Order: sequence, then structure tokens, then C-alpha cells
Amino acid sequence: MFRYERAVRFSEIDAARMVFFARFCDYCHEAIEALFERLDGGYPHLTMVRDIGVPTVHIEFDFRKPLRYGDVVVVEVDVARIGERSITFRHTLKRKSDDLVCALARHVVVTVRMSRAEPLAVPDDIRRVLAEHLAAHEV
Amino acid sequence: MFRYERAVRFSEIDAARMVFFARFCDYCHEAIEALFERLDGGYPHLTMVRDIGVPTVHIEFDFRKPLRYGDVVVVEVDVARIGERSITFRHTLKRKSDDLVCALARHVVVTVRMSRAEPLAVPDDIRRVLAEHLAAHEV
Amino acid sequence: MFRYERAVRFSEIDAARMVFFARFCDYCHEAIEALFERLDGGYPHLTMVRDIGVPTVHIEFDFRKPLRYGDVVVVEVDVARIGERSITFRHTLKRKSDDLVCALARHVVVTVRMSRAEPLAVPDDIRRVLAEHLAAHEV
Amino acid sequence: MFRYERAVRFSEIDAARMVFFARFCDYCHEAIEALFERLDGGYPHLTMVRDIGVPTVHIEFDFRKPLRYGDVVVVEVDVARIGERSITFRHTLKRKSDDLVCALARHVVVTVRMSRAEPLAVPDDIRRVLAEHLAAHEV
Repeated sequence: MFRYERAVRFSEIDAARMVFFARFCDYCHEAIEALFERLDGGYPHLTMVRDIGVPTVHIEFDFRKPLRYGDVVVVEVDVARIGERSITFRHTLKRKSDDLVCALARHVVVTVRMSRAEPLAVPDDIRRVLAEHLAAHEV
Repeated sequence: MFRYERAVRFSEIDAARMVFFARFCDYCHEAIEALFERLDGGYPHLTMVRDIGVPTVHIEFDFRKPLRYGDVVVVEVDVARIGERSITFRHTLKRKSDDLVCALARHVVVTVRMSRAEPLAVPDDIRRVLAEHLAAHEV
Repeated sequence: MFRYERAVRFSEIDAARMVFFARFCDYCHEAIEALFERLDGGYPHLTMVRDIGVPTVHIEFDFRKPLRYGDVVVVEVDVARIGERSITFRHTLKRKSDDLVCALARHVVVTVRMSRAEPLAVPDDIRRVLAEHLAAHEV
Repeated sequence: MFRYERAVRFSEIDAARMVFFARFCDYCHEAIEALFERLDGGYPHLTMVRDIGVPTVHIEFDFRKPLRYGDVVVVEVDVARIGERSITFRHTLKRKSDDLVCALARHVVVTVRMSRAEPLAVPDDIRRVLAEHLAAHEV
């Protein structure tokens, strides 16, 4: 399990006084960017130099409790499955102060050669980084 | 089926030169805000004056094709189900120029009394507005 | 004067229950994207095909009144000056319902060859489109 | 001088492959949120519990160099002036890797009683926190 956290921002609150649901996608993506920092050069090098993208092909969220201004969001990232050309993450988004589960997500990305929009086998260095965060049992 | 469209914005493109996936949530929410304009006072009156919120409790996306700068996105909203206290939408997000399906979403919201965060039966005027967009067959 | 308007979105409200100030930059950029629709192919063709960018080199805002959820924002764009390689806009951001002035902006962009990040003389077709919106007196 | 830094995000890049200019407002606001963490309860407590807002009444930016994906942005915040009911910040936004100045901002906020939208004298605890970051000479 990989853990990413940061404070909810003033601008992320919507007219209902809670974090707008689209922001949960941002939190998950940030968590993956942070996880990929362990790659040589990180996510920027991966995408901008190596021309390898990891676009999302599926994401689903169950929203259970709102996040509000003043909360710190914690994203716990589990790697549920590493396929030939896809990776499945399970994210648990919590409120840090009391570990309340605010949302659960299943998030599937594929690896592609960005400039040609072609599928690509998951590179070995990505496999190695992700393997450290494999969930005990594939769900 | 309700139809909402607008041009992709310059700022919605990410470092992979396509619309960032979180923006698809925004597009779906905008479509619902537009759909609810048929309520007296629209979505703002509903939330700010009548104190009725429709938070998302579940959303899932299948992403098939990227949207890029220069595209106009079309969101086709179908009401799949109107429950006691929940509404299920099916969104089809297309590229306007050639009707290419870029993403499919299933989106479940609940109706709540915002200030007290209490569940609320779907109000009659919302039922009437949504009934016009009921999918032929519930999915 | 060129006029652009759209409804404030649910997600653009911040924890102070008003439109977050950064969103005013977005509104101004959207207005310019809309203005440039009169170019052949619009802003997307300009940037993506002709490789011409118009990055902002200076912007300043006076914020007078808040915009809130339920408001429609109107951006009135005046072209204050067309220089050799720069364009100065004056934006007046109003609340549509009563024409209340919410913010004033001065916004300077330059024309560049995007791929080489080189300055470029303002192209003639842009001059023609902008000339229609020149303020009576250059400020 | 107060210093705030974070990595540029994948989603903050626009169709010109640089950080969209509106995001610089976000960076400045985040820096101020971070600076106010030194208040008891931070910015969330200030706004949500004490009902004290610090809306921006003026901001101006000179943009010199683009920020790109892979950059870490550093915001150096100087307090230029603490008035009766207003605070003037000077922000220098740099690229961390080589300290390149990408943008300069002057940013004026006022203190208000949020619920009544009334002006308020700058509270003493805010003065104390800001005094630590006063620029040597008011500019």
C-alpha cells in the first residue's frame, strides 16, 4: 500500500460546502504521480521523455462521506493487478483526522506509446515499483 | 435523452495533450446543472434556496477515446432509474464532429436536505423534469 | 466590445461561498477563445495547426463584488491596443442579472511561434478580428 | 520571506504544454494557506470557525517564463504592507531546479467578517504571523 496525503484546498470546495466529486479523481491521479516518483525521473520523465502514457480507461467511485475544508485527504493506493498492458489500482480515500473512509475507487490504466497512441506492455521498471504495493490478494 | 454540449477549453488539456479524465466528471455535472434548468429557479435555487442537494454517491466511467483541444463535447444524459431517494443517470460523452463515443458513465445521485445532511425523497418537480428523459428501458 | 457570457458553475464556488478569484482568469481566457472563434478554425486551429500562441505576459484584476452560484457572468472584452507583437485587452466582468461590475482586468498577451517559443508579429487576420472590438480610445 | 513549494501537476498543463496562467493564482493562494497554518487552526479555522475571510481585491502578475510538467514551483511570499484592513503580498514564483523567476505578483487582500461581508481590522494574531515575513523595505 502506498500512501499519499495533502490538505484539501479552499478552491476545491463547491457550492454544497464539500469537496466537489471531480476533485477525487485529481486526488487519485496525484497519488499515482507521487507513487511513480520512485521511477527514475518520475512521472514527468516517463511521459515527457520516454513517451509512455498511462491513461485511465476505467474508474469507479463509491462516495461515502464528504470531505470538507480543513480536512487532510489521505489516498491509500493498492495495486490490485498488473496485467500485460494494464494496471488496476484500488484507492481508499480517507479523512486523516479520524481515518474515516470517504470514498473507494477502482481505477484501471493502460500503458501506451503516447505519440503513436499505441498499446505497450507495462515496462519492467514500472512493474518493479508497483510490485511493492501489490495488495495481498487480488480483488 | 437530454443533450448538453460545449467546446473543450484550452485549460482542460493535460500534459498528454488530451482532456484530463477528471474533467469528464465536470462535463457530466454541467450537463445535470443544464438539465435542472427546467426546474423553477434551476439548480442554484434548488441547492441554495430550497436546501436540496443531489450529491453523487457512485460514478463509473469507461473511457474509450480521448477528447482533444478543438473538440466539442456532447453529453447525452439518460435517466435510467428514479428511485425513492436516488436517481441513476447514464451519460454518453461524444465528440460532436463525428459522434464518436469517447466515454460512457453510470452516475448515481441521492437527494438530501443539505443543511442537515439527511436523506430526502426525490421531490415531485424533479421527478417530472427527469421523467421526460427516462431511458426507454431501465438498464 | 465583444461579449461572452455563461453561468457560474457549482464547482467554481470556494469555501467562502463565492467564485474563487482564480476562476476570473478562466472566464477571461474563455472570452478570448470565444472572440477568436471568428478566425478561420478558431483558437484551436490557431494554436494546434498554425503553431501560433498568445500567452499572457501580464494580467491585473480589481475585484469589486463577488460572483455567487446562480449568477451568470458576462465578460465584456475591449481591445485597448494592438502592438507589433502584443495585444492589450480590457475586460469588464459583470453579473448579468443587474449589470453589476464585479471585476475589471487589464490583460496583455503576446503572439509567439509556439514550437520555437519565438516572438511573432501579430498576424493580419488576428488584427482584423480584433479591430472590430477596439475601444473607442486607446487607454 | 515565506517559502512554499510543490510539484506542477499533470492536469495543470494546458494545450500550449505549459502551466495555464490561471494556475498561478492557485499557487499564490496555496502559499498563503500554507503561511496561515501558523495561525491557531490555520486558514480553515480562520474562515470556517472565526468567520474571517481574506478575499483578494487586487492581483497583478508579470509572467516571464513558463512552468512546465516536471517542474517544481516555488512561491516566495513577502509581506509588503500590513494596513488597517488590508495586506499586500509580493510573490515571486520560481522554477525550483535553477531558481529561474517565472512570474512576479502583487496581491492585495482585505480582512472581512465573512457572514456579513463587512470590513474588519486585520486581527492581531494575523499581524504577528505576517510580521515575520515583512519585506525589509516596503515596495
